[in-house]
Amino acid sequence: MSAFPHRHLLGTEGLAATDLLTILDLGERFLEINERPIKKVPTLRGKTVVNLFLEPSTRTRTSFEIAAKRLSADAVNISGSGSSTIKGETLMDTAKNVDAMAPDVVVLRHAQAGAATMLAGRIGAAVVNAGDGAHEHLTQALLDCSTIRAHKGAIAGLCVAICGDIRHSRVARSNIWALRALGAEVRVAGPRTLLAPGLAEMGAVVHDRIEPALEGADVVMMLRIQKERMGTSLFPNTREYSRYFGLNARRLGLAKKDAIVMHPGPINRGVELDPAIADGPRAVILDQVSRGVAVRMAVLYLLAGGETAE
Amino acid sequence: MSAFPHRHLLGTEGLAATDLLTILDLGERFLEINERPIKKVPTLRGKTVVNLFLEPSTRTRTSFEIAAKRLSADAVNISGSGSSTIKGETLMDTAKNVDAMAPDVVVLRHAQAGAATMLAGRIGAAVVNAGDGAHEHLTQALLDCSTIRAHKGAIAGLCVAICGDIRHSRVARSNIWALRALGAEVRVAGPRTLLAPGLAEMGAVVHDRIEPALEGADVVMMLRIQKERMGTSLFPNTREYSRYFGLNARRLGLAKKDAIVMHPGPINRGVELDPAIADGPRAVILDQVSRGVAVRMAVLYLLAGGETAE
Amino acid sequence: MSAFPHRHLLGTEGLAATDLLTILDLGERFLEINERPIKKVPTLRGKTVVNLFLEPSTRTRTSFEIAAKRLSADAVNISGSGSSTIKGETLMDTAKNVDAMAPDVVVLRHAQAGAATMLAGRIGAAVVNAGDGAHEHLTQALLDCSTIRAHKGAIAGLCVAICGDIRHSRVARSNIWALRALGAEVRVAGPRTLLAPGLAEMGAVVHDRIEPALEGADVVMMLRIQKERMGTSLFPNTREYSRYFGLNARRLGLAKKDAIVMHPGPINRGVELDPAIADGPRAVILDQVSRGVAVRMAVLYLLAGGETAE
Repeated sequence: MSAFPHRHLLGTEGLAATDLLTILDLGERFLEINERPIKKVPTLRGKTVVNLFLEPSTRTRTSFEIAAKRLSADAVNISGSGSSTIKGETLMDTAKNVDAMAPDVVVLRHAQAGAATMLAGRIGAAVVNAGDGAHEHLTQALLDCSTIRAHKGAIAGLCVAICGDIRHSRVARSNIWALRALGAEVRVAGPRTLLAPGLAEMGAVVHDRIEPALEGADVVMMLRIQKERMGTSLFPNTREYSRYFGLNARRLGLAKKDAIVMHPGPINRGVELDPAIADGPRAVILDQVSRGVAVRMAVLYLLAGGETAE
Repeated sequence: MSAFPHRHLLGTEGLAATDLLTILDLGERFLEINERPIKKVPTLRGKTVVNLFLEPSTRTRTSFEIAAKRLSADAVNISGSGSSTIKGETLMDTAKNVDAMAPDVVVLRHAQAGAATMLAGRIGAAVVNAGDGAHEHLTQALLDCSTIRAHKGAIAGLCVAICGDIRHSRVARSNIWALRALGAEVRVAGPRTLLAPGLAEMGAVVHDRIEPALEGADVVMMLRIQKERMGTSLFPNTREYSRYFGLNARRLGLAKKDAIVMHPGPINRGVELDPAIADGPRAVILDQVSRGVAVRMAVLYLLAGGETAE
Repeated sequence: MSAFPHRHLLGTEGLAATDLLTILDLGERFLEINERPIKKVPTLRGKTVVNLFLEPSTRTRTSFEIAAKRLSADAVNISGSGSSTIKGETLMDTAKNVDAMAPDVVVLRHAQAGAATMLAGRIGAAVVNAGDGAHEHLTQALLDCSTIRAHKGAIAGLCVAICGDIRHSRVARSNIWALRALGAEVRVAGPRTLLAPGLAEMGAVVHDRIEPALEGADVVMMLRIQKERMGTSLFPNTREYSRYFGLNARRLGLAKKDAIVMHPGPINRGVELDPAIADGPRAVILDQVSRGVAVRMAVLYLLAGGETAE
């Protein structure tokens, strides 16, 4: 493999198609390791991966932890609660402190947009953005692309509909950039209050109803509705939301016959997704999760281990 | 060893004596590993054990974590706080999500009776019940049987008195089934409000006073009193409880001269157990803890590693 | 190396200079491992290190965890929240329970002075004090001595000024003992309400203004001000404190031209330390953190691995 040109992975914005494909291809190889009886390779032995999760997350942290361990790296978790951030330390001081312990990769989850970018280059470790506010969720987009490619053969030329709370969704933003770079048509759909300026500039076609977005789509990606936003001025109540934007069998009928249904999880069953669809044959939601471990292994490998793995 | 016939371990109810003995025998061998200077074998290298503890627990989680690590498995802890269960996800969705990351064993602690049974067979990983509501605490019963056997030579024919809050105790239930299957006589004793229907059907002799249960017993197993239940309609206050059901030297005198005293911990000193007995020569409480690691190694080995270990 | 004469490391009080130097010398060797591409040695394979942190701490716990993992030990974290200490168990029962799982080293952080000393010898594992109330913070003093020695060549004959809330500082106490044993002159300075009786008996020269303590100092160690104490009868407000006891360029000018500035972290920028100094060329704060991992590796090695490492 030729050298991967990135020292950090902060978002899909600006990532070239070749870089995305390098990660996806490598992810395929690592996916195979996850299916072996002995799910472990010595690739990153002696490397330290710190999961610095200053915003709560279980699934992403667990996925990175398993990815690190299956590559034989030492994984160390630091979570926000109990961390020195409560003692008023700045993020940069926390990060420099962690960095002084010589980790190879710092995986950062943070509530502020731009947090990972701020650290990159200012600490010695490679930085992976595991979600920064409503900005980017890089590895979610990577696992989504991996899943789409596996089910559809290629991403170029596909039509992907991303539906729901686009405005607060780092998943949507990272996916728009990645999918556009890989040649897909991307439609976003949500209530007007949950759309955001700039989506068209990012290359997405914007709809304020779900039906036109679904029409003829190859991939339907439903976003999680955060119930804590319900009842505010942005959101109607859950039932209203579900009536106009929930994915049910009738609406899914608008998409292509072989369209797949995705969701970043956790699912609000009966809100954004009808349980029959979530558990149905077209849902690839658990495949997304499996591929999450694999693409995270690829990311850790590329940032921490290129040379030692040869 | 012939193949262990169980894919999951959900409780002692219905477990055959031969299966119990397989686990206990294997536990003996693993106990020896815990006494070596190098307490680690490569048996489960490349296996992933997820401790999914959706109800708080430190000692059981730590015991499983140490068991997994000493077998060289990758241990990943997920706890309830901060997990996506607070985001309203169902247990089944949480479990399927975890399962999509390809763990070999999921060790579940959950507040609801039946939780582990619900997962078994619906996810790909083997499931171990590490405590489900007031239903079963499988590995506690296994470590208790291991301890009794070590001190008494055999379990068949022994008289075991289980005393305290039987009604809310998964420890009591799992022990009654396991000890009965292994041929012990089991007596349970507690205030009438803390007994439960069905104990006789499980094979226990029920007493509402502690003295007759202790008389001639080989083993005295005191249960933890949960102070948060005190002062309710079920419980008298702590002092009252201790006066009538606490184990002190006088009461222990009713048991056999060489009776051992057990407790699942953590102990309320001076409530269910006189400190002099807890720290005395007949208490085997810390031996129970040591054997806990060993039987959990046996359980993980049987469910995750049978074939690779040969 | 001749045998290290200590089974536990509970504080710097009473530690001989030769023992301190053994740890510091070994720390130098381990520091080099932390700078390798493969930061891992098999030295403590099969050993179990339990980080029993019953008072919140992220950086010290992380440092011990990384230290253990780089030595190939199994590291198991137990934190106060969720632990059975909330169920009313005594510290001794918690510790004996952990000990029954056969750890080689228990690293204890506890809010009570004397907690680690109480465990030592009463459990089978070696005990390391990772901070006990306002009493001792052994490994902080070790990493501080390691840092001072690296920058100044030797500790004997140096003048070290420790400034701030001396009264509540286990960092100050452990450093006074260690630095005095190694032959340094130690000055402490703080508001009168934040000094404590007995400092002179420990060998420190006590000042109630910072300027005379800084004059001609080789090393300036600023202590963290705990904001939760502000506004009480002991503390003025933050601005007042900073005006009289904060380290700024003017005050630092009183110290030697090549004086280094230390801080145990996390820093309150603008309170005890001017940001320009914290980020300036004389600050060695991140070097302290790096050396923290190294001296903790040395401590774990000496207590857990002496014989297996040869």
